[in-house]
Amino acid sequence: MWLGSRLDALPTPALTIDRATARGNAERMRERCRTLGVRLRPHVKTHKTLEGGVLATGGTRRGIAVSTLAEARFFADGGFDDILLAYPLPTARLDECVELAQRLDAFHVLLDRPEALLSLRQRPLARGKRWLVWLKLDCGNGRAGVRPTDPAALELARAIANDAPEEVTLVGLYAHCGNTYSCNGVDAIQAIARDTTSAVLGFMAALRQAGVPCPHASIGSTPSCSHPVPEMSQLTELHPGNYIFYDLQQMQLGSCQARDVAIRVLTRVIGHYAQRGQLLVDCGWSALSLHGAGRGPQGCAAIEGHPELRLAGLTQEHGLLEDVGGKMDFGRFPVGSVLALIPYHACATAAMHPVYYVHEEGQVVALWHPVRGW
Amino acid sequence: MWLGSRLDALPTPALTIDRATARGNAERMRERCRTLGVRLRPHVKTHKTLEGGVLATGGTRRGIAVSTLAEARFFADGGFDDILLAYPLPTARLDECVELAQRLDAFHVLLDRPEALLSLRQRPLARGKRWLVWLKLDCGNGRAGVRPTDPAALELARAIANDAPEEVTLVGLYAHCGNTYSCNGVDAIQAIARDTTSAVLGFMAALRQAGVPCPHASIGSTPSCSHPVPEMSQLTELHPGNYIFYDLQQMQLGSCQARDVAIRVLTRVIGHYAQRGQLLVDCGWSALSLHGAGRGPQGCAAIEGHPELRLAGLTQEHGLLEDVGGKMDFGRFPVGSVLALIPYHACATAAMHPVYYVHEEGQVVALWHPVRGW
Repeated sequence: MWLGSRLDALPTPALTIDRATARGNAERMRERCRTLGVRLRPHVKTHKTLEGGVLATGGTRRGIAVSTLAEARFFADGGFDDILLAYPLPTARLDECVELAQRLDAFHVLLDRPEALLSLRQRPLARGKRWLVWLKLDCGNGRAGVRPTDPAALELARAIANDAPEEVTLVGLYAHCGNTYSCNGVDAIQAIARDTTSAVLGFMAALRQAGVPCPHASIGSTPSCSHPVPEMSQLTELHPGNYIFYDLQQMQLGSCQARDVAIRVLTRVIGHYAQRGQLLVDCGWSALSLHGAGRGPQGCAAIEGHPELRLAGLTQEHGLLEDVGGKMDFGRFPVGSVLALIPYHACATAAMHPVYYVHEEGQVVALWHPVRGW
Repeated sequence: MWLGSRLDALPTPALTIDRATARGNAERMRERCRTLGVRLRPHVKTHKTLEGGVLATGGTRRGIAVSTLAEARFFADGGFDDILLAYPLPTARLDECVELAQRLDAFHVLLDRPEALLSLRQRPLARGKRWLVWLKLDCGNGRAGVRPTDPAALELARAIANDAPEEVTLVGLYAHCGNTYSCNGVDAIQAIARDTTSAVLGFMAALRQAGVPCPHASIGSTPSCSHPVPEMSQLTELHPGNYIFYDLQQMQLGSCQARDVAIRVLTRVIGHYAQRGQLLVDCGWSALSLHGAGRGPQGCAAIEGHPELRLAGLTQEHGLLEDVGGKMDFGRFPVGSVLALIPYHACATAAMHPVYYVHEEGQVVALWHPVRGW
């Protein structure tokens, strides 16, 4: 019912996406990958929408990374294929993986343990299909993955590739350089991107030397892929995700400019509290998340066009705004006026909304409905 | 499809509710209110489910507080009535308020500004109905509300009660003592409950003296209502919400014992990382929220039955567990084993889940589906 509305007519809080900005972000990332000569496999976990996936794949609906089985099914139902479940193989839910592997042309899984490989071996696919497996490497991020320097990594790669070639194929190596998020500046981010790339390529070389076939190598994270280093051209894929929206955190990391941030949360002023110098707005953590709290002066969100305002507090459905100089000019913010918040973390904020209001130049042109759950 | 399942068969992450515990919490709060001689108007914003509302009202489906119009509509559609929208009147969405006021026997609204009263006056209800209005007081919480010591409070109450008695009725005074959440111990919580009660009752007395009819007075917050002070018996209503689930924060505040916490997030171990001494589990902030981060040693969640474990990190879909003593006993936590997290903030964690698995003694007996959005 909100198609055609102006943004300031929307019920608030409302998550809005500037389609031209998101499309521009998608096109620039695709162009960056073309220039590098690598494939872009966009991660869809930030937006979790078919429409976002269409933008990110340039309309092909082929070649995405997902982080939940719910996403995998949702995108498969939406006509997507070549889907990589970029998450340690959920062996407790192997039936669902089998179903996806049988119905899709290419459903890729990822693992970092020999036991996960054994689980796949116990469930060979029918109709001549093979499990398409990526080996997850931990190149310093410290989450999932086997370290490429660990002798177990080569052993596991060899087992994936060779133990049952009619049932299981080693498709590639996958590393997430999430450690770029704790960097201070683009140089530090590029140093991590270079280290990660080098670790993955070094492991590829070791596999070649050992006679283990492994055609692909993918690394990702929006900070590293927004300023790729030349060495990344030797990889075959990149898999960033956040870049389609970007956010305050990415601005602070240097991944993007303010004009590249496509996501906002619109909120209305619902009260003036003169004795405290505070505006009350109808956006609480239920519409924003608490991500960014305690991280720098802007915290969970910046208020667009109002650097003099600061988000001083968030409860479930309320936000409190203060003037950083201490003196609120209430006349500029009448009750009912709409402010736009630039969220610290787009993935976390998007997860709070059942619908995104997508606009072009302030007019709603689409409603996107994300998948939820697992 | 999960009805009848054992909890450890559920796909993870999974939000679970122990129905007997939630029912016990609901019954104890009703009993507490009976003893005080006040009505309980449970706030439903923590669970946002019809089933939770039925438990909290003891089956009457009458007399609840909500914080969004989406909740108001959802509960009205579910057969609930006597619904108080305990949020500053959303004047930009008055059509929706009119619709609810016309269809329900009693749809109450709340305001703290003369302009909001004028908005109601411009939209008189049909069929002999009157707007049922509560005046929101700020008794030290510092969010919405007019301070009872502010002369504007009495003026506004008088205007609500007297300006157009055929169109608008002053039903009551409403104060939320959310400042109890920053207390250290039950004594401090009770001191705030006493101050809030005293401020509300003092204002009631001033209204009586001024000849302004106002039959009801309601205060709330789970910490204050879990250990009510005798003075609260002079109020007419209490409106806590979180108590039906309770959580780690409420345990730390002294509102409840560990056995009273009905909510868990179940998660599976998905990896062992020996060199870091860490377990990887399939619960990230998307299933838990970041509430509680940086608040004490347990942070966003405690691990039930395992005080030796600590949640060391959360990304979107991953959690990292460490042993507080530094040496992880991996043999006790095989990959695939299920752990139960006790979340810091039940309201925030519940908001991350599209379904709650409700169990009795570990067997799923119901699925509850919360309302979302605004």
